[in-house]
Amino acid sequence: MSENGHSQPFRIRAAKHEPVAPRDSALPSRDLQFDVETDVVVVGGGCAGLASALFTSWLGNDVILLEKAPEVGGTTIKSAFIYWVPNNGFLQEQGLEDREEDFLRYVARISRPEKYDPDHPTLGQSELEYSLYKGIYESAWPAAKLLSDRGALPARHAPHWTDYWANLEEDKVANARHLTPDGVNEDETDGGQIAIRGMTKAANEAGVDIRTGHRVQRLIATDDNEVVGVVATTVDGETLRVGARKAVLFGTGGFTHDKELRDNFLAVPAIGGCAARSNEGDFVRIGSAIGAELGNMQYAWRCAVNVQWVAEKDPHMSGTFAVAGDSMILVNYKGERGFNEKLPYNELIQRMYDWDPLNCEFPNRVMVQIWDQYSQDNSAKEFYGNSIVPDDSDQSHIIRGETLEELVTNVRERLARFRETTGPVELVDDFLPRLEQTISRWNEMADNGVDEDFHRGEREVELTVFGGPLSEEAQARKNPVMRPFDAQGPYYASLLSGGTLDTKGGPRINASAQVVDHAGQPIRGLYGVGNCVASAAARAYWAGGGTLGPMIAIAYRAAQAISEEPSRSIAPAKPAVA
Amino acid sequence: MSENGHSQPFRIRAAKHEPVAPRDSALPSRDLQFDVETDVVVVGGGCAGLASALFTSWLGNDVILLEKAPEVGGTTIKSAFIYWVPNNGFLQEQGLEDREEDFLRYVARISRPEKYDPDHPTLGQSELEYSLYKGIYESAWPAAKLLSDRGALPARHAPHWTDYWANLEEDKVANARHLTPDGVNEDETDGGQIAIRGMTKAANEAGVDIRTGHRVQRLIATDDNEVVGVVATTVDGETLRVGARKAVLFGTGGFTHDKELRDNFLAVPAIGGCAARSNEGDFVRIGSAIGAELGNMQYAWRCAVNVQWVAEKDPHMSGTFAVAGDSMILVNYKGERGFNEKLPYNELIQRMYDWDPLNCEFPNRVMVQIWDQYSQDNSAKEFYGNSIVPDDSDQSHIIRGETLEELVTNVRERLARFRETTGPVELVDDFLPRLEQTISRWNEMADNGVDEDFHRGEREVELTVFGGPLSEEAQARKNPVMRPFDAQGPYYASLLSGGTLDTKGGPRINASAQVVDHAGQPIRGLYGVGNCVASAAARAYWAGGGTLGPMIAIAYRAAQAISEEPSRSIAPAKPAVA
Repeated sequence: MSENGHSQPFRIRAAKHEPVAPRDSALPSRDLQFDVETDVVVVGGGCAGLASALFTSWLGNDVILLEKAPEVGGTTIKSAFIYWVPNNGFLQEQGLEDREEDFLRYVARISRPEKYDPDHPTLGQSELEYSLYKGIYESAWPAAKLLSDRGALPARHAPHWTDYWANLEEDKVANARHLTPDGVNEDETDGGQIAIRGMTKAANEAGVDIRTGHRVQRLIATDDNEVVGVVATTVDGETLRVGARKAVLFGTGGFTHDKELRDNFLAVPAIGGCAARSNEGDFVRIGSAIGAELGNMQYAWRCAVNVQWVAEKDPHMSGTFAVAGDSMILVNYKGERGFNEKLPYNELIQRMYDWDPLNCEFPNRVMVQIWDQYSQDNSAKEFYGNSIVPDDSDQSHIIRGETLEELVTNVRERLARFRETTGPVELVDDFLPRLEQTISRWNEMADNGVDEDFHRGEREVELTVFGGPLSEEAQARKNPVMRPFDAQGPYYASLLSGGTLDTKGGPRINASAQVVDHAGQPIRGLYGVGNCVASAAARAYWAGGGTLGPMIAIAYRAAQAISEEPSRSIAPAKPAVA
Repeated sequence: MSENGHSQPFRIRAAKHEPVAPRDSALPSRDLQFDVETDVVVVGGGCAGLASALFTSWLGNDVILLEKAPEVGGTTIKSAFIYWVPNNGFLQEQGLEDREEDFLRYVARISRPEKYDPDHPTLGQSELEYSLYKGIYESAWPAAKLLSDRGALPARHAPHWTDYWANLEEDKVANARHLTPDGVNEDETDGGQIAIRGMTKAANEAGVDIRTGHRVQRLIATDDNEVVGVVATTVDGETLRVGARKAVLFGTGGFTHDKELRDNFLAVPAIGGCAARSNEGDFVRIGSAIGAELGNMQYAWRCAVNVQWVAEKDPHMSGTFAVAGDSMILVNYKGERGFNEKLPYNELIQRMYDWDPLNCEFPNRVMVQIWDQYSQDNSAKEFYGNSIVPDDSDQSHIIRGETLEELVTNVRERLARFRETTGPVELVDDFLPRLEQTISRWNEMADNGVDEDFHRGEREVELTVFGGPLSEEAQARKNPVMRPFDAQGPYYASLLSGGTLDTKGGPRINASAQVVDHAGQPIRGLYGVGNCVASAAARAYWAGGGTLGPMIAIAYRAAQAISEEPSRSIAPAKPAVA
């Protein structure tokens, strides 16, 4: 048994995430005293931090990397590490064309659809937003190629992946922008481990000074608000003041694990998520206190989460990126389906927070996933948060009943346990007959292969990416993701709610990764990359790997900009204490 | 003709709102030099600022009030000034009981429904949230009574108003908490003017030093982060540094008129709103830069807005708080109804941002309100943003057609004008036949008096508050808010979208109105009241007047807390320059 009680923790290995130093004031220090000096301080040891450290170091800068947790890896190490790279060399070799204007239209159309205007010079987006899209297009492949060429992250094409909005006319190359680390396993579940291992090794070789267990609490800035260092503390209460001759770069995470920030910023009240446990929104507060303008604070990389794992604060948990099963439905506390179960995860969650303005509630906030023995036999797999797992796997999140009646009794009991995590959610008294009615309608529609209520299975991406494991028989079916329920038990259930892979909001950056103030002017010496800053993607999930590909692109641009910074003379260092 | 081209500007008189000084850096000044000193600096001259100044002054403090615009009044002067006061003296006199526990349940249930737990000691809400509810219950009536007793705001009961969630079992006194200034006109449209006039007069009498045309740019704080003053600038470029021996209190507005803040924080992409034009989120930035924790940034007091008036940046505009008409529907660009047109405004807007996860769009983001001659004859009134206005009123927002076909042609033309405000929205090619089909179904349902699609008219509040003006014949009808369309033209239309009365997010306060940091600790010397700070109401609109009643309650509490602050010795003042 592993630390979290899973016999096989879904093949996800999280970095050791505690203990960490407690949070202190985020207000900048104006005291220019340093224990140690370097060219560039990088904060965070996931993909954003490591890639930034590598690119910066390879350009000849000394780098100290500070990681809050006892190990590097962040959320990245848990990921599949698909990375989405527009106009990459692999697709070029295949003779495909991924034109800049096509890419820009695709991302603008879905990131901020309410203001997308194909006839506008910046497609209806702000100059800042547009410049980030362009920067990602321009630098993602050079960044990926450099990491690959230097052996930190050897790249392989993964064209079997499909963009999440492949159905839109703006998507011209839906199966070509995905890369994955060379050497991943067949299920593509260990990409994150490979990437972190490779990038950490390369960072060590490049002389990056990686210090784990150091929580950056605040910036050090001149009276003129130029950032020249950071104050970090350790679990033991040691303080380390690090001076930066060129820049401080945050490559930390979002605020998935800070309930106050979730409740006060996210558009929908997500209950938690699968980001690294140390993602507590540190840069939101540290950045705000130096005058950074926050952006995209309402948005997140959203996914379904298993209530059981969130309640247990399982560091190894994955989001439920595909809701597996064909003889499977999601029903709310009234026993009703609420939406298409095979929607891309970012969109599925949006529907979990559909608002009922008559009853003042989110009726689909917690959903009961219900399946039969057929789906159990044919869709079980330990794969990125699947609820349906093989019989020899950890079953703690599974609710079972020989009959529907027994299943419902057990679901009621289980729901009551999670009151603190979900708030009170109780099945209606007549849940069982309502459920039976829902299943009866489902069976009828499944026989015809057409989901008249929610159009399940009508888009390609729902079959290829979000169908989950399916039997051969299913693949041949008119609608592979619809099947009537077995007339006999046993039946199975698990509880899903809305969560975040991680959040998308934070200080805003320009296309050089410089953190900007309310007027769009850079805060001198301060850079940001990754989930700790406002994402270019706003409300959209462009594709699998839409996090990591753009992240390395911006890290690459940050390194270039930082290298052009003059080396500042900062106060003389005291002897290092760490 | 008035400034905005309306012959009768909906009886709403906005305060003069420009010119104002341009925005400068929000970073605090650490230079303790002052041009003038006082006990308390109040920022903002709407209800929050004036009430705070009055309460503080009446407790024996010297007060300087700084208003950015050339006139006081803010959003308040445009309002009806219904104010919602729990357990008020009027209801007590009537023998009604508004128990604290009932009030707390009602507001907790609707403000944060996802975590409302009737069995939890703080009803599932955080300590801070719960303490604000309690503070409002405790102080709203003492505050209202004091303002009334001192002649600043003589109160009258307005029990013909209904709480917006009167249908919920948690609402025990749905028609009793509303007050209005004594002396309002029959339509209750001039309450805001009466209130601002009365409070301003009282403030002058109390010796409050009101200085308009002064934009507060930043705080003055000690190295220890204690707030001891503000830096303001005028349109002429003068700078005024005001020292505060006891406290600085922000009673300014939200960020309705800052597009960047709207786009980067609000849960849904509202296009603007009817707040005072000077509400640009100043305190979000000024507060963040001193380490204030932001709260409720995704929420707003939401209402429909007429696209025409938003596009024209009409300072006198009102939100469309009731969508008038019975032979009237709202349809989207596909010619389909999307929701119940008589929902309370805060909820109506939520449905305008229903997300279509298959087509990646908000199909109801801009709605065409369509009505016939019957509704024109019976529901026309110049009343809080009604689209249907009398024939002798300004008609610039009205689109007309002798036939539906002509109407649709004219709607297409009008929509094209507003591309910059709404983003591109175009009616589908076959809009006309689709509209005809929608009207045909509507007519059938209206004949039966039952809206099978969206339940229009099923709740009392939809008839009493959100029905809009209706004929006597309608009042007697089975469903007063449903009527078939006339078979013959002319027909009328106007364009509605989602907007904000004002936003609800900003620095968080405790129940003494002290602005708090990430740890919930007060930032010494800094207070906040009203729409510039995180509202206790979160996602809910408790009732008409749910803005103003709680606002004066918190202002009252702020004054009490400030009076207990020791008078600080701050740097000696230079001679005043203003």
